[in-house]
Amino acid sequence: MKVLITGGAGFLGRRLAAKLLEHGRLKGADGNEHSIDQIVLVDVVEAASFADSRIRQITGDISDPDFLTMLIDTATVSIFHLAAVVSGQAEADFELGMRINVDASVQLLELCRKAGHRPKLTFASSVAVYGGDLPAVVLDSTALTPQSSYGTQKAVIELFVNDYTRKGFIDGRVLRLPTICVRPGRPNAAASSFASGIIREPLNGEPAACPVSEQTRLWLLSPQTAIDAIFFGHELPSDALGANRNINLPGLTITVAEMVAALERVAGAQVAKRIRWEIDPRIERLVSTWPGELEAQRARSFGFPGDTDFDAVIRQHIEDQRRAPA
Amino acid sequence: MKVLITGGAGFLGRRLAAKLLEHGRLKGADGNEHSIDQIVLVDVVEAASFADSRIRQITGDISDPDFLTMLIDTATVSIFHLAAVVSGQAEADFELGMRINVDASVQLLELCRKAGHRPKLTFASSVAVYGGDLPAVVLDSTALTPQSSYGTQKAVIELFVNDYTRKGFIDGRVLRLPTICVRPGRPNAAASSFASGIIREPLNGEPAACPVSEQTRLWLLSPQTAIDAIFFGHELPSDALGANRNINLPGLTITVAEMVAALERVAGAQVAKRIRWEIDPRIERLVSTWPGELEAQRARSFGFPGDTDFDAVIRQHIEDQRRAPA
Repeated sequence: MKVLITGGAGFLGRRLAAKLLEHGRLKGADGNEHSIDQIVLVDVVEAASFADSRIRQITGDISDPDFLTMLIDTATVSIFHLAAVVSGQAEADFELGMRINVDASVQLLELCRKAGHRPKLTFASSVAVYGGDLPAVVLDSTALTPQSSYGTQKAVIELFVNDYTRKGFIDGRVLRLPTICVRPGRPNAAASSFASGIIREPLNGEPAACPVSEQTRLWLLSPQTAIDAIFFGHELPSDALGANRNINLPGLTITVAEMVAALERVAGAQVAKRIRWEIDPRIERLVSTWPGELEAQRARSFGFPGDTDFDAVIRQHIEDQRRAPA
Repeated sequence: MKVLITGGAGFLGRRLAAKLLEHGRLKGADGNEHSIDQIVLVDVVEAASFADSRIRQITGDISDPDFLTMLIDTATVSIFHLAAVVSGQAEADFELGMRINVDASVQLLELCRKAGHRPKLTFASSVAVYGGDLPAVVLDSTALTPQSSYGTQKAVIELFVNDYTRKGFIDGRVLRLPTICVRPGRPNAAASSFASGIIREPLNGEPAACPVSEQTRLWLLSPQTAIDAIFFGHELPSDALGANRNINLPGLTITVAEMVAALERVAGAQVAKRIRWEIDPRIERLVSTWPGELEAQRARSFGFPGDTDFDAVIRQHIEDQRRAPA
């Protein structure tokens, strides 16, 4: 079988590819395991090269229909659609967000429909689909009222993934990812970028600016658990999911103050003191519309993996960096 | 000011135009009333002609960007977007539904954004955005899990209307219409077409087939109240609506058996006996996924008009037919 990962050069895409290579097989729409012959990583930039002949890296723009058409054939049994213009960027460049987050995603769905072999499609959505006047704890049944273009665009594709699944064009799964933390590497244009920055940079001996108040509540998931959850979501039988393909992944609810306290416990007061507060109203506005606490009842009933506590998440990040520095 | 009504040849479009002609003015985005200089009715077919020089009828395909571009300029202060491929047709012809209900609507929003004058846009959405595993009473905060392509496509445009409003590109209002009953004229491809047929045809001395069981609950709104509600929704100040532009209009919750009993009370047993049951699983499947009861708390708090009882709705239909037979 052939697997396609969009956003394949991103850190989630690369980690997912590594996990799939290690595991070597995936469940197809028939429920049986098939060995993976090829993993196509597509992205606008080249990923660090993999020393594995099953990996094929392709660079291009997925909003170009001709390019996208090349990537999907009836051997493409499984697609992980991770590519996105991130929240801060989609807010700043409306047209770019619509082109990549909506148009390219719809084209991907259309190619699946026209190919006619009902591929599995695992779509990485986001907590940003929630927003506005939310209950204290967001339930799986809470209406989506996103307060960002990124959240809107993700919510739109969620609806299509559900309808294309209902129509039998794909076997879709929508995984709403919490904010991933601690994300390795450098800051990006996501409004949530600081959540990793205030842990990662101080651990590297660098100062970090926190653009939101200490009381801000976040809903977090570690990179390792995110990959495990994406894999788990893919392997769930179609029947178990039923008509509703949306799953809020189980995250950790934590305030920025609690994150800083955890950093101090794990790495010491000197490290935690490298964080300074520089409130950025633009970022605070976006982040404050996201829910800080979600019940994630459906995900728990399916048995999705979750993180136990934030101290362990920081320790895991330190361990990851020791083994493979970003 | 210039008003554009898409689906302007449809029965709601024509009635809305008649109401606007009679009223003569509309509130602009500035909150002040402006007199209506022109109402452009656009549709794929020609409407019955209006004896009013303010009406301009244009025939064409709104999914053609060049055609749509002609229809909108900075004088177009208000747009009522009623055009749609109806539920049964969007389910049978997936590509057509996507082209009209999604692509054309997005192009309309994009033209508004590019025109740059922040027109008011009143979007006719539908109870079909709800579906699947619903609570006994649907609240304004219930998540959208449509179980039809029509409902999905309406839900997608709702999200965009909200985001385009948040970004300041339009001043949008989403009015989720209950099933309109009694709709004059002939049956159409909407899965809900029978709801009008089982009242209208017996009153005309004709037999009518009911494709769903007597226990089926429907959520209904009369044509007159629908027009009043669309007008009312347009005139609401932008500030009153706030960030959430979606409004479930207040409908009547009623079973098919109760509808038949009302017909018998108003028109006699002989008329009601003209209904026969011919269960159509395709229609029953679609209709049964729609909620039969909605709280419509927001609409009531704004003071939207509603119908009092179904007997009055039937009497209104009889009166309408007497004055202007379809």
